[in-house]
Amino acid sequence: MKTDHLLFGAAYYSEYLPYDRVEKDMALMAKAGMNTIRIAESTWSTIEPQDGRFDFTHLDKMLAASAKYGISVIVGTPTYAIPTWLSKKYPDILAVTDHGANIYGARQNMDITHAGYRFHCERVIRAIMEHIRDVPHIIGFQLDNETKSYGTAGPRVQAMFVEYLKEKYPDLETFNHEFGFDYWSNRINAWEDFPDVRGTINQSFAAEFAKFQRLLVTDFLKWQADIISEYKRPDQFITQNFDFAWTDHSIGYQPEVNQYEAANATTVAGCDIYHPSQSLLTGEEITFCGNISRSLKKDNYLVLETQAQGNIAWLPYPGQLRLQAYSHIANGANSIMYWHWHSIHNAIESYWKGVLSHDFSENETYREACTIGDDFKRIGAHIKNLKKKNRVAILLDNNSLTGLRLFPIGELGEHSYNAVARWIGDTLYRMNIEYDMISSAERDFSSYDCVIAPALYSASDALLDALTGYVRNGGHLIATFRSAFCDEQLKIHCDMQPHILHECLGIHYDQYTYPQNVQITLSDGSKSDCKCWMDMVCCDTARPLFFYEHPAWKPYAAAAVNEYGQGSALYLASMFDQHALEKVLRDYFNSFSPEVLANSDCHFPVIIKDGTNDFGKNVRFYFNYSDTEQHVVWNGCSGTELLSGASATDGDTLRLAPWGFIIVEY
Amino acid sequence: MKTDHLLFGAAYYSEYLPYDRVEKDMALMAKAGMNTIRIAESTWSTIEPQDGRFDFTHLDKMLAASAKYGISVIVGTPTYAIPTWLSKKYPDILAVTDHGANIYGARQNMDITHAGYRFHCERVIRAIMEHIRDVPHIIGFQLDNETKSYGTAGPRVQAMFVEYLKEKYPDLETFNHEFGFDYWSNRINAWEDFPDVRGTINQSFAAEFAKFQRLLVTDFLKWQADIISEYKRPDQFITQNFDFAWTDHSIGYQPEVNQYEAANATTVAGCDIYHPSQSLLTGEEITFCGNISRSLKKDNYLVLETQAQGNIAWLPYPGQLRLQAYSHIANGANSIMYWHWHSIHNAIESYWKGVLSHDFSENETYREACTIGDDFKRIGAHIKNLKKKNRVAILLDNNSLTGLRLFPIGELGEHSYNAVARWIGDTLYRMNIEYDMISSAERDFSSYDCVIAPALYSASDALLDALTGYVRNGGHLIATFRSAFCDEQLKIHCDMQPHILHECLGIHYDQYTYPQNVQITLSDGSKSDCKCWMDMVCCDTARPLFFYEHPAWKPYAAAAVNEYGQGSALYLASMFDQHALEKVLRDYFNSFSPEVLANSDCHFPVIIKDGTNDFGKNVRFYFNYSDTEQHVVWNGCSGTELLSGASATDGDTLRLAPWGFIIVEY
Amino acid sequence: MKTDHLLFGAAYYSEYLPYDRVEKDMALMAKAGMNTIRIAESTWSTIEPQDGRFDFTHLDKMLAASAKYGISVIVGTPTYAIPTWLSKKYPDILAVTDHGANIYGARQNMDITHAGYRFHCERVIRAIMEHIRDVPHIIGFQLDNETKSYGTAGPRVQAMFVEYLKEKYPDLETFNHEFGFDYWSNRINAWEDFPDVRGTINQSFAAEFAKFQRLLVTDFLKWQADIISEYKRPDQFITQNFDFAWTDHSIGYQPEVNQYEAANATTVAGCDIYHPSQSLLTGEEITFCGNISRSLKKDNYLVLETQAQGNIAWLPYPGQLRLQAYSHIANGANSIMYWHWHSIHNAIESYWKGVLSHDFSENETYREACTIGDDFKRIGAHIKNLKKKNRVAILLDNNSLTGLRLFPIGELGEHSYNAVARWIGDTLYRMNIEYDMISSAERDFSSYDCVIAPALYSASDALLDALTGYVRNGGHLIATFRSAFCDEQLKIHCDMQPHILHECLGIHYDQYTYPQNVQITLSDGSKSDCKCWMDMVCCDTARPLFFYEHPAWKPYAAAAVNEYGQGSALYLASMFDQHALEKVLRDYFNSFSPEVLANSDCHFPVIIKDGTNDFGKNVRFYFNYSDTEQHVVWNGCSGTELLSGASATDGDTLRLAPWGFIIVEY
Repeated sequence: MKTDHLLFGAAYYSEYLPYDRVEKDMALMAKAGMNTIRIAESTWSTIEPQDGRFDFTHLDKMLAASAKYGISVIVGTPTYAIPTWLSKKYPDILAVTDHGANIYGARQNMDITHAGYRFHCERVIRAIMEHIRDVPHIIGFQLDNETKSYGTAGPRVQAMFVEYLKEKYPDLETFNHEFGFDYWSNRINAWEDFPDVRGTINQSFAAEFAKFQRLLVTDFLKWQADIISEYKRPDQFITQNFDFAWTDHSIGYQPEVNQYEAANATTVAGCDIYHPSQSLLTGEEITFCGNISRSLKKDNYLVLETQAQGNIAWLPYPGQLRLQAYSHIANGANSIMYWHWHSIHNAIESYWKGVLSHDFSENETYREACTIGDDFKRIGAHIKNLKKKNRVAILLDNNSLTGLRLFPIGELGEHSYNAVARWIGDTLYRMNIEYDMISSAERDFSSYDCVIAPALYSASDALLDALTGYVRNGGHLIATFRSAFCDEQLKIHCDMQPHILHECLGIHYDQYTYPQNVQITLSDGSKSDCKCWMDMVCCDTARPLFFYEHPAWKPYAAAAVNEYGQGSALYLASMFDQHALEKVLRDYFNSFSPEVLANSDCHFPVIIKDGTNDFGKNVRFYFNYSDTEQHVVWNGCSGTELLSGASATDGDTLRLAPWGFIIVEY
Repeated sequence: MKTDHLLFGAAYYSEYLPYDRVEKDMALMAKAGMNTIRIAESTWSTIEPQDGRFDFTHLDKMLAASAKYGISVIVGTPTYAIPTWLSKKYPDILAVTDHGANIYGARQNMDITHAGYRFHCERVIRAIMEHIRDVPHIIGFQLDNETKSYGTAGPRVQAMFVEYLKEKYPDLETFNHEFGFDYWSNRINAWEDFPDVRGTINQSFAAEFAKFQRLLVTDFLKWQADIISEYKRPDQFITQNFDFAWTDHSIGYQPEVNQYEAANATTVAGCDIYHPSQSLLTGEEITFCGNISRSLKKDNYLVLETQAQGNIAWLPYPGQLRLQAYSHIANGANSIMYWHWHSIHNAIESYWKGVLSHDFSENETYREACTIGDDFKRIGAHIKNLKKKNRVAILLDNNSLTGLRLFPIGELGEHSYNAVARWIGDTLYRMNIEYDMISSAERDFSSYDCVIAPALYSASDALLDALTGYVRNGGHLIATFRSAFCDEQLKIHCDMQPHILHECLGIHYDQYTYPQNVQITLSDGSKSDCKCWMDMVCCDTARPLFFYEHPAWKPYAAAAVNEYGQGSALYLASMFDQHALEKVLRDYFNSFSPEVLANSDCHFPVIIKDGTNDFGKNVRFYFNYSDTEQHVVWNGCSGTELLSGASATDGDTLRLAPWGFIIVEY
Repeated sequence: MKTDHLLFGAAYYSEYLPYDRVEKDMALMAKAGMNTIRIAESTWSTIEPQDGRFDFTHLDKMLAASAKYGISVIVGTPTYAIPTWLSKKYPDILAVTDHGANIYGARQNMDITHAGYRFHCERVIRAIMEHIRDVPHIIGFQLDNETKSYGTAGPRVQAMFVEYLKEKYPDLETFNHEFGFDYWSNRINAWEDFPDVRGTINQSFAAEFAKFQRLLVTDFLKWQADIISEYKRPDQFITQNFDFAWTDHSIGYQPEVNQYEAANATTVAGCDIYHPSQSLLTGEEITFCGNISRSLKKDNYLVLETQAQGNIAWLPYPGQLRLQAYSHIANGANSIMYWHWHSIHNAIESYWKGVLSHDFSENETYREACTIGDDFKRIGAHIKNLKKKNRVAILLDNNSLTGLRLFPIGELGEHSYNAVARWIGDTLYRMNIEYDMISSAERDFSSYDCVIAPALYSASDALLDALTGYVRNGGHLIATFRSAFCDEQLKIHCDMQPHILHECLGIHYDQYTYPQNVQITLSDGSKSDCKCWMDMVCCDTARPLFFYEHPAWKPYAAAAVNEYGQGSALYLASMFDQHALEKVLRDYFNSFSPEVLANSDCHFPVIIKDGTNDFGKNVRFYFNYSDTEQHVVWNGCSGTELLSGASATDGDTLRLAPWGFIIVEY
């Protein structure tokens, strides 16, 4: 979605304030140049304190004060945290999961398929929409928040799952065969015999249930969007706050939601991205996760939540709040919305701090936010709605992610899929190669010079055929170990590996192990360890790049390139050190599209991002992700440093302060 | 409580003996100079083998034999472990906790509020008291044992909790506001809507429940004491065996009991202290925990349990059993009671060994105990009832402890509170500064030169006002990071931090983080890492002692001293190495009360303890907590080495054997 | 059991095939020289897809194809994995364990005492036996698979346990005393009062329940064997696939089965052994576990399962598959049966790979298996039915194993027993001393020069008397720390330790601890750390070998030898480095039987195994467990290298390739 101006602001909860200071807060925001708040999400118990009794006091006050200070509003439906009275009325509204029945307390504890939940959701959403339908400065709506199935797996949900299976696999014989239920006597010979999926040792069955649970999310968001759409004005957007796979921060693609399908319910993609800070701030998560969000609608996206002070370990160094904000914008985001304005005085997120600390004083973080707001007013028009044209794309697939959670790649554990995808993505990032994401549902890859399939464990034949066709017609494919290994039911293929792709890759293998003391030597003589996995690759038509250095495994290639049709394909049979992957990628890209490497003379910690702005001009960002001053040389046509207004002329040396950045429009 | 003589002995369970040897055991005890046994606690199933059928055989035999050998008896009520028949009669007598319903087996598994439990407790206590009321050599009674709520949280207990809340917060609006229940839609708009507290994500609510659970303990002990009091003679004491926060040994203040309130039910404080031994024996736990016990009644206390052989890792080196015994006495204890006499031949504590091993032979530990008993007979009168006059006190607070379990200080984890308190206490100890503990319920601190508030996370305004007043009137306060941060409901203050105390401390802060590669430089040029936490302190009127050495955080002070009124205050904004804390404390104490440092020329592993005995004489203990001989010089008036009878004259060099000690009366 | 030829083959499941290729598979097996498959175990849901409806299609097809290719068949009863319909019919057929009620999914999830389970087991077994009774090439039957009680502990099973206790301890008074139930008020004063054993803190009670659970296994196998016996021909064997204690591979004696008793139901012992591979392949598990299996019937045994490719980390280096196969045979196995033929395409063991990978191509592993099959045809007759005559035996005891799971030896944790047993066994192995195992039920040890009792924590007086008598009559006993410490109810002895054995050992102790910085010095001046445990041994008549080097523990011996009667005994009071144990053992064996050390000039990684074949000839195997070529000198009478046919003459140097081996018949 294109926007008139960059949205800058924070989630705001007057409900959580220790005393009434809505007007003061809005004044402080306006002073900081903030122009948008996001409200109402997760406040059901104040909006509807008792069954059917509605109270819009907080909503009205926030809407009035924001109007007064010229601040726009995004309203979230409050449904992702249920009130106490609702769980008392329907004790079974709390989801039954792998861990048994939830008890009340946390958000996202309910069964999103429960009719009672749906009834009350709809009523409260309609009540809110009726109440606010005429408010002009509401610019959009957020459906629920970070919606998932929350692992709902109670008897009723499992019965729904069996109905879904009946529909998809009407013949039990086929079903048993495809899922391999003969194993360990798990065969299901009557629809009545379905066992509790929570106990299964059959990963195909578990993965199908995960797929079904993702459908529940898609359905739920579509259902909410349909309700909202009955009320919203054409100029108001609908978004969802998609979040990401998580350790103690956002790390990659979300396992529990098919965001590509779910995003159909929205008019603009939204997301929250949280990342390490201080000396661990790299911009990798901002780029990797942001690229996912940009790919959902193939358009600019909203950062609906990101950290201001964030959690205790993330208090930004001076300069980092600015660096982070511009990193999002440079990546195609049209908003910086902090979670959240004020730090909360009770409960579990008391130390997930907002722009303001608990004392509401103007602190360092607020002061730095003010400079962002000021600058956005000055130069925002030049950096919003940035258009990207990337030559490289990474293919993402939920079912492969699930598959590698169930069958982890050794030490990479439950995050195996994202670890491999990040290994690729972060290496591109550090080489200053911008990349897109594409859904595994795509079949046309022709707009890209190169498509990368990291750990595409599960794939349909149609997808593999499409990738093969892409190469045949001149495309360039990079596939890693653990790709094309099994079908969409996680049934491992019983023919040559990698299934179908072995043709365009020109290789095959039938064995693999974990590397122990295995190395490779690159063409420049440098060495790398092999890590986590190694396929024993035999080259059929491919050219091996290097072999495993180990007495037992030396006959096998660790990477190989194959010319196929009009294109070529590269297979990475193991995981290498980053410098080794960079070398391999550089050589490979050079072989068919040196343009991919256009910005690769610079290297992390200096990061370059390019885009085209609403004026049709090029905008280039230079970021310094280090505490050391960096210098870059400006080459090419004359431009303007947007922040300072200085001109940039061919050959100029640009100075990047520690954790600093420069933007040139040209 | 003052005692006629030091109590020396062990817990004794004739019930657990593999064969009858009560007479033999008593003879062995008498031979070792032991004069007291503690019996009956946890033996309900032998005393009342079936409902209403009492059997005092064991009791009578132990009482008779102990009388014969001149051994006094402390009788514990047997209620902390219920018999099988009782749990069969009332299946719901077993507590429901966070982990679900207990099943029978362990001690302390019952719901102490259950009326059936109370009924049977009372009946068995009265039966015992009736039976033993005329026994002259019973010197006192122990209420139950290590009593806690054991996490009882079943529906009935939660209903009691709601009643307690109704009483305390009659207005639900206030209640919701104070506890911040609007957050995540947790608002409770009707008393009927109360959710299961076990699922809460609201730490204020969880902490209030912990507070309520501590009240259950106070009430239970009071109720038992009232029953006992109907029977006991005036010369008989009532005690409780208070234990401490626990890792694999006693580490600090008990989270589950408000010992200051609970001790009201007793006439003398009792405790058990278990500590590392062998090369890890330092005396720190004996001092820290013993100081807590001494503070409960502001009087001498009883060590009702401590290790003889203890668990497998604790088998004492030669000399250590003596060293430990005198360390307790030097700290104000009037008893050394081992847990336990004989090692148990079955069940979970089989390797928590007593004085005797399983073979009942006279082993090394017994032989060393004999020397203790002999010496107590000779010199016990000179070292019992020691009076202390300490200049420094550490303030203890249960709710802060709970608060920092729920919001741990980073890597310090669930023991954050005690880690900070021990950091202070153990540093004082190693500097040979003896200290008292004081309850956070105290308001008058005027008897101390210095009060230290470690991690006083939660505090009432009244307490903070009292501390401020104390400084204003000439007192000296040391406060650490994480103090005065939130109110008694763990609601974080919304004004300047540290709340109220910022005035006397002369500083404020609004941000904090975990230190990574942050150092300080002390005035002597030495350096220390900052660990675990760092407040970004701005000095208002205070004088910074040093600043953080880090590019991002250098504007902020890591410690600061403020003159305020007639007194002064020191703020420690981070956790330093022990040598750095010693330097800071030394400088600070020197600035107002060099007397605090009177014994600080000696340093751990040589530890000095002082007291005044019943003869009004000073007694000084020198302990050597190392395997290396140590020497100290005796300065001052002439005295007598109590154990050897030698005289100590000014300038004498006293030799401390490895793990040895010397006591001088002067 | 003696066999006509070595059995070589794999578990085979046509049920699991992605497409019908039974004929192809049999042809491939025959080509590899395979002569046996094991089928049907765990395929209940295909054999009886609905209650009472049987379908022998798969069975018939496999039997027909195997007949055609001359492949023998072992048929397993399918009862160790129940079909979905059975768990639907009897929801309570799923066992209730310490973790609550099982849910359907995994194998081995049922209550093996459930009458409904037994009814359906019997019916399906009889149906199969009826169907296959005339098939000539079925050579034997396997009862169930890796049978255990699976922790079944529901109310009905506990009621059975109480009945068992009533029988065994008719007098409750005795029962309470022996189990020490007075402790913590656990006394059971009426049979109705029995608490849930799952909550017990009484290890004697827990161990008795474990003993009872082992009886359930013995009974179950006996019951199945009786059914099979009604049908089987005299030439058909009955076996059971006994497995071992497990970490991520087989490590030692199985805690949950008394294999010595359970093996009574079989005519030949069978087992599965899985072990680390690649650089971690040592042969230790093959030897230790294989020795157990050989001891069950005191005869040759069947390896019913072992790894081909195995799991991902185990892909064998070139040569290792051969090395492993011959290691089993050299140890007295008469079969090498891989688990399994083809890698499975779905579910939890998809990456526990068979001979073939998922693509069914002839891979490296298959090719190496072909060489094994070829060689077995040539020389198998010379190496089958190998007879062993070992001079040393290790005594194994289930209850000691249980005891040391409940009371672990410090850091050795739940595998304490096997850790000590393996410490001994693996040291013997590395010294090239072959050893037998013997059951603790044995009383006659006279056929051995030396009996070793590692960590014999629990023992009957009868056993200890027998061991003492064995020494008195000229035997040689090695006992380690933690031996003879408690009786069969895990009640710790209350007399001198080690109970009874102290007499023949000539030592006693009454204290012990964990060693910290404790060393010993051997007679050759080398040093070793003491690890995990140290008894404070006083030598009565024994000669100390060395004392603990530590200021506190120096009076105590760490090992001591005692002459007693006609024999001698060695006590190991602590755990030493392997080199130190080798030195001690070498000296000790030398003192009475240098023949024990006959092969000890060679040392791991070169391993020697000896046996006598059906021709009455000696067969010696030299194995090289390293990636470095090794050389050994052939001493003695002339022989023939079986594989090459070359002659071996006194003084010849034999070359062992990396991971290679040589077999000499002489």
